[in-house]
Amino acid sequence: MGDRLNDLLARLHTADDLDRAAAVLGWDQMTYMPPEGNAGRGDQLATLATLWHREFTSPAIGELLDALETEYKDRPADDPKRALLHVTRRQYEKKTKLPESLVAEMQRASAEAYKAWVAARAEKRFSLFAPAFGRILQLNRDAAEAFGYAEEPYDALIDDAEPGLTASRAQQLLDALKQALLPLVQQIAEHRERVDRSMLIGEYPHEAQWQAGIDAATAFGFDFARGRQDVSIHPFTTSFGVDDVRITTHINPGFFPSGFYSTLHEAGHGMYEQGLPAEWARTPLGQAISGGVHESQSRLWENVVGRSHEFWEYFLPTAKRYFPTQLGHADVETMYRAVNYSEPSLVRVDADEVTYNLHIAVRFEIERALMQGNLTPQDVPDAWAQKMQTYLGIRPHDDLVGALQDIHWTGGFGSFIGYSIGNIVSGQLWQAASRDLGDLPDMIRRGEFAPLLGWLRTNLHQLGRTYSTDQMLRRATGGPLDAAPYIDYVQRKYRAIYGL
Amino acid sequence: MGDRLNDLLARLHTADDLDRAAAVLGWDQMTYMPPEGNAGRGDQLATLATLWHREFTSPAIGELLDALETEYKDRPADDPKRALLHVTRRQYEKKTKLPESLVAEMQRASAEAYKAWVAARAEKRFSLFAPAFGRILQLNRDAAEAFGYAEEPYDALIDDAEPGLTASRAQQLLDALKQALLPLVQQIAEHRERVDRSMLIGEYPHEAQWQAGIDAATAFGFDFARGRQDVSIHPFTTSFGVDDVRITTHINPGFFPSGFYSTLHEAGHGMYEQGLPAEWARTPLGQAISGGVHESQSRLWENVVGRSHEFWEYFLPTAKRYFPTQLGHADVETMYRAVNYSEPSLVRVDADEVTYNLHIAVRFEIERALMQGNLTPQDVPDAWAQKMQTYLGIRPHDDLVGALQDIHWTGGFGSFIGYSIGNIVSGQLWQAASRDLGDLPDMIRRGEFAPLLGWLRTNLHQLGRTYSTDQMLRRATGGPLDAAPYIDYVQRKYRAIYGL
Repeated sequence: MGDRLNDLLARLHTADDLDRAAAVLGWDQMTYMPPEGNAGRGDQLATLATLWHREFTSPAIGELLDALETEYKDRPADDPKRALLHVTRRQYEKKTKLPESLVAEMQRASAEAYKAWVAARAEKRFSLFAPAFGRILQLNRDAAEAFGYAEEPYDALIDDAEPGLTASRAQQLLDALKQALLPLVQQIAEHRERVDRSMLIGEYPHEAQWQAGIDAATAFGFDFARGRQDVSIHPFTTSFGVDDVRITTHINPGFFPSGFYSTLHEAGHGMYEQGLPAEWARTPLGQAISGGVHESQSRLWENVVGRSHEFWEYFLPTAKRYFPTQLGHADVETMYRAVNYSEPSLVRVDADEVTYNLHIAVRFEIERALMQGNLTPQDVPDAWAQKMQTYLGIRPHDDLVGALQDIHWTGGFGSFIGYSIGNIVSGQLWQAASRDLGDLPDMIRRGEFAPLLGWLRTNLHQLGRTYSTDQMLRRATGGPLDAAPYIDYVQRKYRAIYGL
Repeated sequence: MGDRLNDLLARLHTADDLDRAAAVLGWDQMTYMPPEGNAGRGDQLATLATLWHREFTSPAIGELLDALETEYKDRPADDPKRALLHVTRRQYEKKTKLPESLVAEMQRASAEAYKAWVAARAEKRFSLFAPAFGRILQLNRDAAEAFGYAEEPYDALIDDAEPGLTASRAQQLLDALKQALLPLVQQIAEHRERVDRSMLIGEYPHEAQWQAGIDAATAFGFDFARGRQDVSIHPFTTSFGVDDVRITTHINPGFFPSGFYSTLHEAGHGMYEQGLPAEWARTPLGQAISGGVHESQSRLWENVVGRSHEFWEYFLPTAKRYFPTQLGHADVETMYRAVNYSEPSLVRVDADEVTYNLHIAVRFEIERALMQGNLTPQDVPDAWAQKMQTYLGIRPHDDLVGALQDIHWTGGFGSFIGYSIGNIVSGQLWQAASRDLGDLPDMIRRGEFAPLLGWLRTNLHQLGRTYSTDQMLRRATGGPLDAAPYIDYVQRKYRAIYGL
């Protein structure tokens, strides 16, 4: 019944168009919207979310799924049409459990929380954000109850962001990372003087930083005819379709890596979005597998590629053109070591590969405690300080570099774990791509990024959501989610840099 | 029955949010969207238009209107709630006549026509745009049939843009303008040497032009906390709500008035949008009366104020700061005469106050002939050339400065007449404001624009659509739509400048 499938597709297209329209409004909100526009924008986003929910959860879609699942039941599980039914069903079941009023209320609360977050940041006081944040927490609890869960409410949110993952399995993965990384942090701290990054600090003009980032992102393969970069407080990527992917960056004119690596990071996200299957555009099948898998692409391009010795063999001459006085005398080895300087720091987005996952552990464990009712919003700054002390040996001197640093809590919970999943997956994919492609480091040295991007297109991007995270990893790497390759990569790299 | 009214309001809010969301997408399309984003954006806009249509034309709104009209029938006609019912009813009747499929098709065709228009402009050939334009024409004919009309199909489109106006009445207004202005054009042409605008041509850096425009718009009263300016090919204003109004400009680095007066023009539009009644936001009552009345605000601030002798007495010192070499030696009189230089020219947006309405006559008469079937899309360039010859004595050397110059035909017909209505209304409002406020020119000389803006707020902006164009004019000026004040204003001004 091609008609039934077309009917389903038309309905999914309508819903997706609403979602992408909301993405445009969200992008504008973070980039260009004037200060007073927030209230109206909140109304509009709430309406789009409500209508999306109404379209996507319409009983007609449920009936079409019922009929089509029967019709396609003998096809292999990775037949695209059957995969479409599978991912649509999963999302349909999730979303039909959320009442329309809750969806609208979450959008409205999120717009208000964003406003409160901006105001609280200006005063550097989490307490000003706490009431709006408490509302977000309550609505997330309501959502978890509506979704249902096996062990604890937080599971429902984790599973929403990372299909199949639970809070306890996520905690195990974080524990594995902590076990390997805490000693490494300690050892590096004892030999911090072995890496000097002072040349990255100083006057790095905005425009030259901007252009250097654009050059690197273009070389990687981000297509600026099908996307663009703008400025926002907190860098992000959003997609209005495979042919219109927006990345943003935030440039610090006194510190080169901040904006440059934000651009490479978001370009990694952006190339995933640009590589999704156009033939399944505007459907759940034409989307990324999960936030964590998305993060694997940003971390792979930002860190595994962009912070490699070979990348700087390729890119240093270009960087010297943009920064002749700042980097004119730099050699590749010094640059490589400088951009991999590791130090416990307060701000996640500026964290290095060794400390990054510990920042995630702080947030994940706080979210989990909040969801379990073992922590209240006003106690978050204290909990934050204690965990930072335990994992990284430092405490934030104010909330701006503490619990107010991330935009995520203006929306909801469950997404931070994706960053660690991303690191883990980036290690696995890099290992497999190296195995398949031959001398990948040498390609990077020559500025040949197309083979790696092509491998990622074939093994991940173009498949959309045909496979789950574990299935995709089995096909591409031979095994399921596994932290070992990432831990091995980080340990080797940093032991060499710091001579441990 | 407050509940019924609240139910109606909630439905109108939902529809308006969809409309404003579409406005955000449209704004992005014209300002920042990457080249390949067009197809996806067309899909999204089509979906938003379809859903807007579905929401706004839902039978529930019809039933609520029926019930509420009975309930409020004894209130005075300008009671806001009764006015809300009146304007909502008018729009409801209009829109229920348009099938949802036609709405979606018009959106899609419009996105395609925009693409074709950009491509045709690159080649300067209208023929490349003609097929997409023919589709627009056909869909406009379909819309006219769906709306219904008394005399000719074009009436339906005119009435949609300018409630109550017909093609024949519009033609009469244009004929009155032509009768007064054609001789003036002729007389000025014989004394062209009496005004020298050469100092406005030359190197006017983008950034300084941008800032000069922002300064003037700010002085007028455009609120940049509730709006912003960006760059687009064709300047426009769009509103996402009273607290988020976007204007754009297009700067010509070799000719100062182009970008500067675009900014003042759009700021005039923008201040109308920022002044609409917040308590009726997200409803048809909280909107501008018509495109023509909207244009009265842009023309009033751009021309009647911005091209006055008194404005330059106020603003020239600022302009000299931005352009010390270009304008350092200019005096007010020379500047005033230069910005009012009148000459038959090919491009509408650069036309002066004497020739502007003749450009409108060209377009209006071509649209009318197309709608009547007396002209085909491929014959538009010839018709254009002939009319330009008759009214202005010049012919376009290519279509870029001919029939391809305006973006409007990528959308539909009926809106151009609004520019002439705008000029006419600006003359009436200026006359009445001068009567009410005392020495308005002297206020402008001192940079005091608040009294004029306040008068416009009270007599127009804050009323939303409580009154029709004629009703609003009767209240504010004492009489209905009348071309005489504008004709008198233009004749006096230009006879003095050119010593006629």
